[in-house]
Amino acid sequence: MSAPAGALPERLLLGSGPSPVPERVLQALALPTIGHMDPAFAEVMAETAELLREAFVTANGATLPISGTGSAGMEALVANFVDPGDRVVCGVHGLFGERMADELGRAGAEVVRVEAEWGRAIAPERLVAAAREGLDAMVVVHGETSTGVAQPLEGLSDACREHDALLLLDCVTSLAGHPLRLDEAGVDAAFSGTQKCLNCPPGLAPFTAGERALAKLGRREQPGRSWYFDLSLVLGYWNAGGGRAYHHTAPINLVYALREALRIAVGDEWLASRWERHRRAHAALNDALAVLGCRRLAPDGEQLHPLLAVTPPDGADEAAVRGALLTDHGIEISGGLGPWAGRLWRVGVMGAGAEQEPQARLVGALAQELRVDATDALAALEDGWRA
Amino acid sequence: MSAPAGALPERLLLGSGPSPVPERVLQALALPTIGHMDPAFAEVMAETAELLREAFVTANGATLPISGTGSAGMEALVANFVDPGDRVVCGVHGLFGERMADELGRAGAEVVRVEAEWGRAIAPERLVAAAREGLDAMVVVHGETSTGVAQPLEGLSDACREHDALLLLDCVTSLAGHPLRLDEAGVDAAFSGTQKCLNCPPGLAPFTAGERALAKLGRREQPGRSWYFDLSLVLGYWNAGGGRAYHHTAPINLVYALREALRIAVGDEWLASRWERHRRAHAALNDALAVLGCRRLAPDGEQLHPLLAVTPPDGADEAAVRGALLTDHGIEISGGLGPWAGRLWRVGVMGAGAEQEPQARLVGALAQELRVDATDALAALEDGWRA
Repeated sequence: MSAPAGALPERLLLGSGPSPVPERVLQALALPTIGHMDPAFAEVMAETAELLREAFVTANGATLPISGTGSAGMEALVANFVDPGDRVVCGVHGLFGERMADELGRAGAEVVRVEAEWGRAIAPERLVAAAREGLDAMVVVHGETSTGVAQPLEGLSDACREHDALLLLDCVTSLAGHPLRLDEAGVDAAFSGTQKCLNCPPGLAPFTAGERALAKLGRREQPGRSWYFDLSLVLGYWNAGGGRAYHHTAPINLVYALREALRIAVGDEWLASRWERHRRAHAALNDALAVLGCRRLAPDGEQLHPLLAVTPPDGADEAAVRGALLTDHGIEISGGLGPWAGRLWRVGVMGAGAEQEPQARLVGALAQELRVDATDALAALEDGWRA
Repeated sequence: MSAPAGALPERLLLGSGPSPVPERVLQALALPTIGHMDPAFAEVMAETAELLREAFVTANGATLPISGTGSAGMEALVANFVDPGDRVVCGVHGLFGERMADELGRAGAEVVRVEAEWGRAIAPERLVAAAREGLDAMVVVHGETSTGVAQPLEGLSDACREHDALLLLDCVTSLAGHPLRLDEAGVDAAFSGTQKCLNCPPGLAPFTAGERALAKLGRREQPGRSWYFDLSLVLGYWNAGGGRAYHHTAPINLVYALREALRIAVGDEWLASRWERHRRAHAALNDALAVLGCRRLAPDGEQLHPLLAVTPPDGADEAAVRGALLTDHGIEISGGLGPWAGRLWRVGVMGAGAEQEPQARLVGALAQELRVDATDALAALEDGWRA
C-alpha cells in the first residue's frame, strides 16, 4: 500500500533532536495565527518569557525566544556580546565548540581555543588559566551534542569577572534536562534550542542576557553587524517596557508552541524533578545499552544526561543498524560527527523521550537488529528506572 | 464571561501581515515533527523548493526557505551578496528601504541612497542613473509594506549587468500577490516572507539566488560575517546535490506549513490568476473605501495590490477607529509608520484576505465605526468584484 503524496511516516524521535513533540504542543502550534502587535499576543509573549526565566533559573529581564533555530541563538549571542578585536576564550571539545570558534572568528574576535578531545569535558582550571592573560569574554558549550558531554562551569564566572569579561553559554541540549542554574553559575548570557529537552518543534532559540551583558551592548558606539539579531532593537518589541515597538514579525505560532512546551516542562513538572528524571533515564538506558555491548563515550561524571552517546557493540555496522531502526522500527537515533562519524550512536534522553516506555521500544528494536536476546537489557532498563 | 487563561481571540487578519492562515495550513503545521535528516523530510524539502521556484517564477536551483522571518531573509541577502566596501545603490521610499540601507551599512557597504517620498515609487531611470557611476549591487524593495507602493523594475537589471553588479530584491509583500517574474526581470537574488500573500504563519523567509549571485559568493576569500545565513553552508543541506549535509536543524513544522500554503497558492490556483485576483480585490476595496472618504496614498499605477494604504476620512480618529475594529469586530488592520504614523490605514489584500467576503466584513465594520451607512460602499465593493 503506497502512502499518499506527502504523507509522513510515524517516528519515535530518540536522536540528538528534534525530540518527541507532545500532542498538546502540536495543538498549540496550530492555534489560529493572530497579529504580532495584537494585545492578546503580548500576553502570550509575557507568559512565555516568564516561563523561560524559570527554565533558565534566572531573574534576567532580557529573556525571550530569538526568531530562529538554536544556531540563530549562537549567532545572536556573538553578534550582541562580542565586538571585533575582543579576546575570547572559547572551549572546544566537539562540533558545537568548533562552530562557536568559527562564529567568533567571523565576528572579528581574537579566539583563544581551549581544547579537549571529543568525548571529554574541559578541565575548568584550564579555562581559568587561559583567562589569566586577560579576556573580554569566555564562551563554553554546556552540553556538547556531538559527544554527550557536560561541561563543568565551576570557577569560570569568577575568572571572567576578575577581568570584567562576560561568561557566555551554549545550553542548547542541557536546558530543562541537565542541572543548570544560570544566575548561580554567574552566566551573563546564554542561548538554547526548543527541539531538545523542551519537546517543542525547532525554530526558536530561547535566549537570556543579564545586566553586565546588556551594559556592554549599551556601550557599543556603532551598530552591530546584525540587524536581525540586534537585541537593542529586539528587546523594544519583547520587553513590555520597550512599548512593544515593531522590529520584525515574530513567529507567532512557534511562540504558542513554546509557551505550551514550557507549561509542561516547568509548569506541570517541577524543574528539579525534571532534571532528576533525565539523570535517571540516562543511567537506566546506559545500563541497558551496556548489556547489549555499547560503551558510553563520556566517562562517569562527565555525561550529559539528555544525550547518551555510545560506541556500538564490536562488529555491529553502525550505519546499517541505525538505518534499520529508522526504516523498520520508525525509531530515529543519531550517528557520530567529526572524528566519531561511523563510530557512535547518539541517543536522545530528552523530555518526553526520557521515559521508560520509549526507551524500552528502542532497546527491544536494537536487540532485534543486533540479533541478540533483549531480556537482560530490558531488565537492566527496568532496574535502572526502579532505582 | 471571562476567557480561560491563554485563550486567543478570533481575528480576521486584514493588516500588513500576518494574513489569514487557512485551516489546511494550520493542520499541516501540526503534523508530527520528524527529523531534519529523515529521508521523508528530504521529500518535503524538495517539493517545497520546487513550489517556491514556481512562486518566484525562477529556474534557480538555490531556492529555499531561510530559517527565520522575512527580515532574516533581508539579512541573508546582504550577508551573502554584499561584501565590505561594495558600492550598493539602494532604493529608499519607505521603512523597508530604510532598513535595507541600515543593514547595508552594518555590512560595511558604501550605500548610495536613491530616495522617493514615502508613498511614491522611485522612477527607475533615477536608479539607472545612480548605477552609471559604477556599483557592485543594487537593492530595491518591490513591495513597500509601509506605504503600499510597488516599485517598477524596468531597466534595473541591464544597468546592473553593465557593471557586472547584482540586482537584489525584497519581495516580502509582493510574492504570489503582485506580478513578478524573477528571471525575466533579471533579479539575481531575492527574499520574501511567508505571512503575506502565501497565508502561512510567520517564521520562514522564501529565498532564491541565481548563478551570478552564487558566483560572487564562490569568489569570497574569507567566510562571511554570518554563519547562520551562510548560503555556501545552508545549500549543502537544502540542495540534494549537497548531500543533505547537516548545517542547522530546519524549522520542520514551519516547512510543512509552507509546503501546504504553496500547494494552495501555486498548486490549486494558477499564479497568474492569483495575481489577477489580488489586482481586482485591491481595486474593489479601494473603490469601497473611497466611498467612505478614504484616499489611497499610492497614485494610480504605483499601487501594490496586496497592500492598500489609505488616509482615513477627514475628521476620523485613525487610532481609535482601528482599535475599535480590533476589539469590537475582531478585525485587524494596520496603522501608518514613520512620517505616516497616525495618518494612514494599511489594509492587507493578501491571499485568503483578497476575497469579497472578508472585505465586506471590513467595509461594514468600518462604516459602523465611522457612523455612516455602509450601503453605497458595499455596492462599490460588489461592483468592483463583478467588474
